[in-house]
Amino acid sequence: MDECIRNCSDCHAICVATIRYCLEQGGRHADPAHITLMETCADICRTSADAMLRGADVHVHTCRACMEICRRCAEDCASMGDDAQMQRCADACRRCAESCARMAA
Amino acid sequence: MDECIRNCSDCHAICVATIRYCLEQGGRHADPAHITLMETCADICRTSADAMLRGADVHVHTCRACMEICRRCAEDCASMGDDAQMQRCADACRRCAESCARMAA
Amino acid sequence: MDECIRNCSDCHAICVATIRYCLEQGGRHADPAHITLMETCADICRTSADAMLRGADVHVHTCRACMEICRRCAEDCASMGDDAQMQRCADACRRCAESCARMAA
Amino acid sequence: MDECIRNCSDCHAICVATIRYCLEQGGRHADPAHITLMETCADICRTSADAMLRGADVHVHTCRACMEICRRCAEDCASMGDDAQMQRCADACRRCAESCARMAA
Repeated sequence: MDECIRNCSDCHAICVATIRYCLEQGGRHADPAHITLMETCADICRTSADAMLRGADVHVHTCRACMEICRRCAEDCASMGDDAQMQRCADACRRCAESCARMAA
Repeated sequence: MDECIRNCSDCHAICVATIRYCLEQGGRHADPAHITLMETCADICRTSADAMLRGADVHVHTCRACMEICRRCAEDCASMGDDAQMQRCADACRRCAESCARMAA
Repeated sequence: MDECIRNCSDCHAICVATIRYCLEQGGRHADPAHITLMETCADICRTSADAMLRGADVHVHTCRACMEICRRCAEDCASMGDDAQMQRCADACRRCAESCARMAA
Repeated sequence: MDECIRNCSDCHAICVATIRYCLEQGGRHADPAHITLMETCADICRTSADAMLRGADVHVHTCRACMEICRRCAEDCASMGDDAQMQRCADACRRCAESCARMAA
């Protein structure tokens, strides 16, 4: 569970920072659907991390939602092409999705 | 969707206020499992309301988690017996769970 | 205090929805500095509302920060010119700033 | 700024976990005023960390509030006596208050 908390916290932080980066890039990066996906990804990562930090057994439900949303966010970020910041964000989302999948199982 | 946003926002607010009430009551009301459930219920309601407010299509995943957690929270609150504050909180959780069930379908 | 909680909650909600609107408008509306100001305004409104809902006496500190940030956000939104959505958001920010000023006094 | 983001994130996480610990201890640890202070401390730490992560210049206002609330929370935690978890939480709050004081100056 500690690894999942860390992955959710890392994914939250990199999503929040990457939104700024995307707004500065403009174009596809600043597409409303992409930004709102990243904002929601940041929120559910935070909610899941906190549910686990406080030992709430309903964390299985937040982790399942987190897994689904992180997968979508990882695909969206990876589709932005050869862009180091987006690939780092996609990697963080994938790691978070994988550990949430284990917690939600 | 507007009704679901309103129900999630109301449920968030009443959970946050009711946590204080429960801590003041002590005993079963202040049981760690009950308080941490209510805290997580407040968080997922906020996350779901915001996902819908910003038009993120992944709101289906946050609404599904919100439905499950609100149902659990409603049962927990209702089990506290003849207590007006807890019944109001249980009612808000049930209304939120029902509208989230429709959004997640 | 109930009025201030309501104003903070309303301001949070309209900021979250208006970010989406701004991203769709593009141009000045989607300026990174404007979007990050609105995101932070939404966050501090939520934090202040919740501090008051749970009766935390440190709400004076969150309300002071909320007052300052809502004032800045109101100016930024109002500067977008003849745009009904932005004026509604500016009005909500101003109302929130005024009631937070009273709570922080 | 990176150090302050890290201190705010750490303080958020330890406060969320320590609330659970306090509820399990009961007595003074579960005093409503103490728990609501810790909840608000966790929230403002998150809000400040995110404001800095997204490069919002209004982070000076969230950091000032965070400094005040973390100082209060540190005192409250330290007053719980010879208790390793509370001392760790007090230390995290103090570190966060100090780095927020530098950011808010």
